[in-house]
Amino acid sequence: MFKNNIQNYIIIVAGGSGQRMGESIPKQFLIIHQKPLLMLTIERFHQFHSALRIILVLPERQQAYWEELCRTFHFEIPHTIVHGGPTRFESVMNGLSVIDDVRGLTGVHDGVRPFVSDATIKNCFAQAKEHGAAIPTIPLVDSIRELSATGSLSRPRNSFRLVQTPQVFKTDLLKKAYQLPFRESFTDDASVVEAAGHTVYLTEGNTENIKITSPFDLLVARALSAQIKAGQNE
Amino acid sequence: MFKNNIQNYIIIVAGGSGQRMGESIPKQFLIIHQKPLLMLTIERFHQFHSALRIILVLPERQQAYWEELCRTFHFEIPHTIVHGGPTRFESVMNGLSVIDDVRGLTGVHDGVRPFVSDATIKNCFAQAKEHGAAIPTIPLVDSIRELSATGSLSRPRNSFRLVQTPQVFKTDLLKKAYQLPFRESFTDDASVVEAAGHTVYLTEGNTENIKITSPFDLLVARALSAQIKAGQNE
Repeated sequence: MFKNNIQNYIIIVAGGSGQRMGESIPKQFLIIHQKPLLMLTIERFHQFHSALRIILVLPERQQAYWEELCRTFHFEIPHTIVHGGPTRFESVMNGLSVIDDVRGLTGVHDGVRPFVSDATIKNCFAQAKEHGAAIPTIPLVDSIRELSATGSLSRPRNSFRLVQTPQVFKTDLLKKAYQLPFRESFTDDASVVEAAGHTVYLTEGNTENIKITSPFDLLVARALSAQIKAGQNE
Repeated sequence: MFKNNIQNYIIIVAGGSGQRMGESIPKQFLIIHQKPLLMLTIERFHQFHSALRIILVLPERQQAYWEELCRTFHFEIPHTIVHGGPTRFESVMNGLSVIDDVRGLTGVHDGVRPFVSDATIKNCFAQAKEHGAAIPTIPLVDSIRELSATGSLSRPRNSFRLVQTPQVFKTDLLKKAYQLPFRESFTDDASVVEAAGHTVYLTEGNTENIKITSPFDLLVARALSAQIKAGQNE
């Protein structure tokens, strides 16, 4: 999929401070079956394509700890570390600032989504190459309601999709979009690119590609990881 | 919360045929830590209030098997079994048809949501008593997009809520709403009651209250159940 002389990137955003988990340790550092969660995430992209350049956005105060973890766990996948910003938007901007080759593709991925499948990554990069912007989505299992000033209203579940990451874009397009001033409506990279006037292509995500933000998610993550290990040992 | 001389009901809808699970056994009968999933669900409501009358809606062809399971597992919580219909709407209508006391409250719950918390059930019944109609909801973790004829658009995640069950109503209100002719937009009981002109009050659900519809959900269910058992044995 990738041409040899063009550099492609994945920006992995790991800005969590751990407050939502009710634990003192930031969630990207939690150990799932003998390995920090963030390493599992980085491994997914390295396994997908070893030439993909990995940019890790991490709060400055967590970087020494991360480097210590890398030594302890003999983690040797090459990656560039950049400082996290006060918001996700600024974190991604910082990640983009170290990108020099704008001819290829750049993905943005949540550091706490370690169960993204190879198929999901592949689809997003392939469709972004074709359409300029591609993001993985899944249908809703639950019913959905929209809140309004006067209350809330039932909405048709089939008209909605939940959005995951990696969100992948032509690098020049993403860089240009991130020159826009920040708006409250920028909830993900697709919304930024859309505000810059580009349409976004929806690809299929994988159900297991959950964002680990609560103790419940962590329980799920450990069960998934145990299942994967059991499969590998068969 | 309940008055002695007024009957309250919970209709538990278990219509699944198992097709979505890729397994031959309907998902409500899957064993999670030594017990069929549907029994775990029924137990939640019996533990909440033993005077709550439990109505189980089950496809006719599955009823003999269910009764066999009840004998095997010495399952003795009293419940009334009614035939499932071809659609969820008709299943709930069948459940409503055996309700004779319309002065109290009636909830409707998915048979495959065994992890509903006591607090969620309590909130829904209490708020339905107050407001006539109450349903449990949770905020979204992922971003969300709405599909349109020309593509899709990013929507503000905070304006949406995912809807769980039990959905609880004043019994007369629910019975009246279910006299409406079926519409495609009836995705849950709240949407039926809303079509009948009533507003629906949103209460807080619990994250673990997932609908078990896929092999991934089953993995999550087993992990949750193991955690609950470990907690009980401490």
